[in-house]
Amino acid sequence: MPRIAYVNGRYVPHVAASVHIEDRGFQFADGVYEVVTVIAGTLMDEEGHLARLTRSLKELSIPWPVKPRTLRMIMREVVRRNRSANALLYIQITRGPAPRDFKFPAEPTPTLVITCRRTSFQPASALEKGVAVITLPDIRWQRRDIKSISLLPQALGKQQAVQAGAFEGWQVDPDGFVTEGCSSNAWIVTKQGMLVTRPASHAILNGITRQTILACATQEGIAFEERAFTVAEALDAAEALMTSAGTIALPVTRIDGQPIGDGRPGPLAKRVREMYLAHGGVADPVRAGGV
Amino acid sequence: MPRIAYVNGRYVPHVAASVHIEDRGFQFADGVYEVVTVIAGTLMDEEGHLARLTRSLKELSIPWPVKPRTLRMIMREVVRRNRSANALLYIQITRGPAPRDFKFPAEPTPTLVITCRRTSFQPASALEKGVAVITLPDIRWQRRDIKSISLLPQALGKQQAVQAGAFEGWQVDPDGFVTEGCSSNAWIVTKQGMLVTRPASHAILNGITRQTILACATQEGIAFEERAFTVAEALDAAEALMTSAGTIALPVTRIDGQPIGDGRPGPLAKRVREMYLAHGGVADPVRAGGV
Repeated sequence: MPRIAYVNGRYVPHVAASVHIEDRGFQFADGVYEVVTVIAGTLMDEEGHLARLTRSLKELSIPWPVKPRTLRMIMREVVRRNRSANALLYIQITRGPAPRDFKFPAEPTPTLVITCRRTSFQPASALEKGVAVITLPDIRWQRRDIKSISLLPQALGKQQAVQAGAFEGWQVDPDGFVTEGCSSNAWIVTKQGMLVTRPASHAILNGITRQTILACATQEGIAFEERAFTVAEALDAAEALMTSAGTIALPVTRIDGQPIGDGRPGPLAKRVREMYLAHGGVADPVRAGGV
Repeated sequence: MPRIAYVNGRYVPHVAASVHIEDRGFQFADGVYEVVTVIAGTLMDEEGHLARLTRSLKELSIPWPVKPRTLRMIMREVVRRNRSANALLYIQITRGPAPRDFKFPAEPTPTLVITCRRTSFQPASALEKGVAVITLPDIRWQRRDIKSISLLPQALGKQQAVQAGAFEGWQVDPDGFVTEGCSSNAWIVTKQGMLVTRPASHAILNGITRQTILACATQEGIAFEERAFTVAEALDAAEALMTSAGTIALPVTRIDGQPIGDGRPGPLAKRVREMYLAHGGVADPVRAGGV
């Protein structure tokens, strides 16, 4: 069965799915996106992702290409056509094609692209041993709260991390505080057992998985604090973890080559992941899949 | 005669020219570009543009899609097929299509797109009356020296300028110094007749037109200084101007609504433009075209 993508009103074979060379997404990074994790057929945090998409479009004055309720239908149809129980559903909206000019076209025809890729998520080793991160300067623009496709610095950072043998790069602001990972939010657990993550602002992307975890923590009475933390504090923490739609929550056991805590995944990282999945009403796809 | 674009080895009707939805240029802004002005069939500053393209690709570790000498041939062929005496030749290279992942693909197949658009350049009024700019905070990333397609902040800035009735937005760093325009370099002429523009660094894109003008100024004995200037100094300057491949050099006669000098184009702005065009061996396309 060929993989199917949705592009501007049509369901097409993924391999043949294309956009015009003057799409502003291709020439100006003038677009936004969301990644929705599908676990056992459930679209995780769908409301949160659509709310953020709405906000991103508004911040950039990009019109909706279809009505939100139509988008929801298309999302489901793409999952269905790809017969994907466990998958990453990718939604991208750009300001669409227009003769090349920095200023916005007067009457934009926004582009909507939706793809779906089956996934077995991280290997179980990422949960059992945790992952390594490196720290690197945050060189991004000042509106990181908008989930735009202007992702070149994040791609460069991730590549730097991978080349250093790490799974993720934690970006650090000029004052030495961690902002977030290249494609995830960053967390620590203090020696007092306090879960800590940076508050939402223009400095970070307010992760949907992050928001759900904070809501769950409130519900379950887990102590947390939204504040910035330094690299030094992270190195000295009891635990560290990262969250994103695609990875859910993974223990971070090494930062810049140094072990965090005893160098093994800690109890709160595990609990955060379980809590998130239980809230979504699904089993852990990594363990369940027996990867 | 239909407009023709070049995409990855093929000359195709512009209207049908496309790239894959998982091209990294579309999903990650992972690519670079150049705009070469064609005046009366001459590719202006071709060497400079190719040198900067080489540098941009190297900084991002994007391999050449074709050999540089082949690129030169294709550039000419695109101009020829579009029968464009006066045109903007646009060259974009991305890391190419790959299954979506922040890190670089192991074996990239870079994408090469070249388009050509006939132009009559700015209306003569821009030369006769000058253009207006507004100032706005520079919110871009920290590697503005790379001519990447990660242009969302510049597009937002230009749109803001246009909505304010201006032609360009001059971006200002946190210390109050002008970095550059959204798609041009910024210059002033002091009351002592000194031409001033910000030195090349990671804070600005080192314009090819800018470089040629500085070389011409040296040759012709025009006093210039490469240093940052504040908005206050610009408002108090004798003249202001902007340069880019597409606009060549235009007098800036209003900044944030305030007239510069006597509010009319000054002599040095005019001389800079004439000097640049004479150096390229071409007549002014705006005046020559009788627009």
